[in-house]
Amino acid sequence: MISFNFKIIAVGKIKDLNLNNKIEEYLKRLSHDTKTDIIEIKDSNPLSEGLKIQEILKKENSFSIALTEEGKTYGSIDFSRYLAAIPGKITFVIGGPFGLSEQVKNTCRQRLSLSPMTFTHEMARLLLLEQLYRAVSIQNNRSYHKE
Amino acid sequence: MISFNFKIIAVGKIKDLNLNNKIEEYLKRLSHDTKTDIIEIKDSNPLSEGLKIQEILKKENSFSIALTEEGKTYGSIDFSRYLAAIPGKITFVIGGPFGLSEQVKNTCRQRLSLSPMTFTHEMARLLLLEQLYRAVSIQNNRSYHKE
Repeated sequence: MISFNFKIIAVGKIKDLNLNNKIEEYLKRLSHDTKTDIIEIKDSNPLSEGLKIQEILKKENSFSIALTEEGKTYGSIDFSRYLAAIPGKITFVIGGPFGLSEQVKNTCRQRLSLSPMTFTHEMARLLLLEQLYRAVSIQNNRSYHKE
Repeated sequence: MISFNFKIIAVGKIKDLNLNNKIEEYLKRLSHDTKTDIIEIKDSNPLSEGLKIQEILKKENSFSIALTEEGKTYGSIDFSRYLAAIPGKITFVIGGPFGLSEQVKNTCRQRLSLSPMTFTHEMARLLLLEQLYRAVSIQNNRSYHKE
């Protein structure tokens, strides 16, 4: 069984109770075989948020991926293969309502787009977690992706 | 103000309470200036589901769009312009866990993909409604898309 180590740096709290419940559900599902930590940055503006994010990224020895609309898109199977090929910890960075600063995008090793469409940053966190759970399921041949 | 008339034909019920609440929230938001009906088809298999969908589509005098992963992708602003350019009612068709039959895809005027990634059909319904609300907001210059 392939095991992953994910960290998510995200700006702002999830204020929507329903989205928060779904996010918690996927975190719980992931916890069975994957370490997934979330660090929340207080939302202010992309520049100050970015400074805090970069401080955290500096301390991490991990492969960092910024979520931005202009990033690379993947199908779910390709995404699972892509993640499986990265050795060690993978850190995803999700901005707040105003997105990520250019500095953060440039600091990250890769830019990822979940969809060419814009979704709220709260929904982006749920979409990412669902895709991470799906990726782990695909790699470990669980039925989730075949449902 | 631009007004839209949407219909969504979807296979299966939304069993997840949290996703259902979010879907209801976007339906309520849309209801202020857009007629949006949802018709749910009982889930069985793509072929029998497809026959029921085609029956409904035949009776409709509307522009039909099938949601499939291999469909065309849009950014949110382009999507809103695309919808605004369609005269009359627009019907979206969302399959169940096993997707839509080829017959339904061929009957529809257009194929749309919300993302190259696979999401659950329950999440697809939420994503579509969020994008419809966003599209209406963009066309009517509401603050939602700028948040």
